Amino acid sequence: MRTQRVAAASFPCHQKRCWLFGGGDGGVLHEVSRHSSVEQIDICEIDKMVIDVSKQFFPNVAIGYEDPRVKLHVGDGVAFLKNVPEGTYDAVIVDSSDPIGPAQELFEKPFFESVARALRPGGVVCTQAESIRLHMHIIEDIVGNCCQIFKGSVNYAWTTVPTYPSGVIGFMVCSTEGPAVDFENPINPIDADDSHTKTRGPLKFYNSEIHSASFCLPSFPKRVIESKGK
Amino acid sequence: MRTQRVAAASFPCHQKRCWLFGGGDGGVLHEVSRHSSVEQIDICEIDKMVIDVSKQFFPNVAIGYEDPRVKLHVGDGVAFLKNVPEGTYDAVIVDSSDPIGPAQELFEKPFFESVARALRPGGVVCTQAESIRLHMHIIEDIVGNCCQIFKGSVNYAWTTVPTYPSGVIGFMVCSTEGPAVDFENPINPIDADDSHTKTRGPLKFYNSEIHSASFCLPSFPKRVIESKGK
Repeated sequence: MRTQRVAAASFPCHQKRCWLFGGGDGGVLHEVSRHSSVEQIDICEIDKMVIDVSKQFFPNVAIGYEDPRVKLHVGDGVAFLKNVPEGTYDAVIVDSSDPIGPAQELFEKPFFESVARALRPGGVVCTQAESIRLHMHIIEDIVGNCCQIFKGSVNYAWTTVPTYPSGVIGFMVCSTEGPAVDFENPINPIDADDSHTKTRGPLKFYNSEIHSASFCLPSFPKRVIESKGK
Repeated sequence: MRTQRVAAASFPCHQKRCWLFGGGDGGVLHEVSRHSSVEQIDICEIDKMVIDVSKQFFPNVAIGYEDPRVKLHVGDGVAFLKNVPEGTYDAVIVDSSDPIGPAQELFEKPFFESVARALRPGGVVCTQAESIRLHMHIIEDIVGNCCQIFKGSVNYAWTTVPTYPSGVIGFMVCSTEGPAVDFENPINPIDADDSHTKTRGPLKFYNSEIHSASFCLPSFPKRVIESKGK
């Protein structure tokens, strides 16, 4: 959840309608709702207990549900997405677990095709993309799939999360064919001294410098990722 | 050791004479010796067993000792430094453990004063500076001490090391009064495709982008560190 909160804060342009896959705890909702340009946030969480537990025990995270722009759907996001009209969303965030077992299909081409179809031309997606320290074999496949499906821009970014295995986590940030998206240089950056909402205060970690630095890759993943992008 | 190897690879200009405090395993030596401009590397390791164990069990790390420019001193680095003539070194690397118990004095002003005295004007030092995730109270003190002692440039950089607590580690990279040092933009960058020595191959992690990104700080340490530097 925490990683995707960074991702949610980093969308590079004004987004009107967002779709969130998973993230039932409400943390990503909380970050997306910082953007005043967002008009609707659809969230699809498969497990209602995640929502209930978060509201009971983590009210500072579940606060995201209090935003009136949030529309909650409890159910299977994969099925939901298939029934969404083409070009519905400006932004999609996939807050998934690891690609083993139930979440495996969220890293495969059919799902990415559904996401691309649901996005408008030049729409953006951010999806969890594992650790460069542990999962280069998985990352290589994810990058390969994204390059085939998302015909705008395909990027790998990463950040540190102490509680995750190896202490780092990555994201694929991609766009569909259409108006160009420069992920490294957001039109609407959020800085620590720009709280966006007076009630919530500034971000503790994320700022413009950290955003740009997240696209700087060490040499070993850089070689692999760039080779898949050719 | 691994963190300081990154640091050793990142010295911003041609250095002729380096002093290494600790680092008996040989890893930092290995990285310093990539720089052809270095003429002499003095290493002061207090524990001979560290050296012996590394040579026996980690020959790929201890390979640093094979460089003919290395001069090994087994003994107390703090005492050694006090007897070094003023302005002896171009670069100092302090490969220390945490500031609890025997290593505590390596984070205090008298030691930093010894380092500054041993450096030439515009000489550079890199010293281990804990984790922004766990040790901001310690980092605040280290930055404060460095700002008082090193009158050139004082910077905090960080990187990820999965085996360290919280998965990240920082460095103070500072210079003494004299010719200006721009740590973020090294004169002599080492890139992954520039192996420096044909026998050792390219670096796996470090490159110019990662070097610059290591100076980008999240908002919470940035606020604290910048306030100490005022």
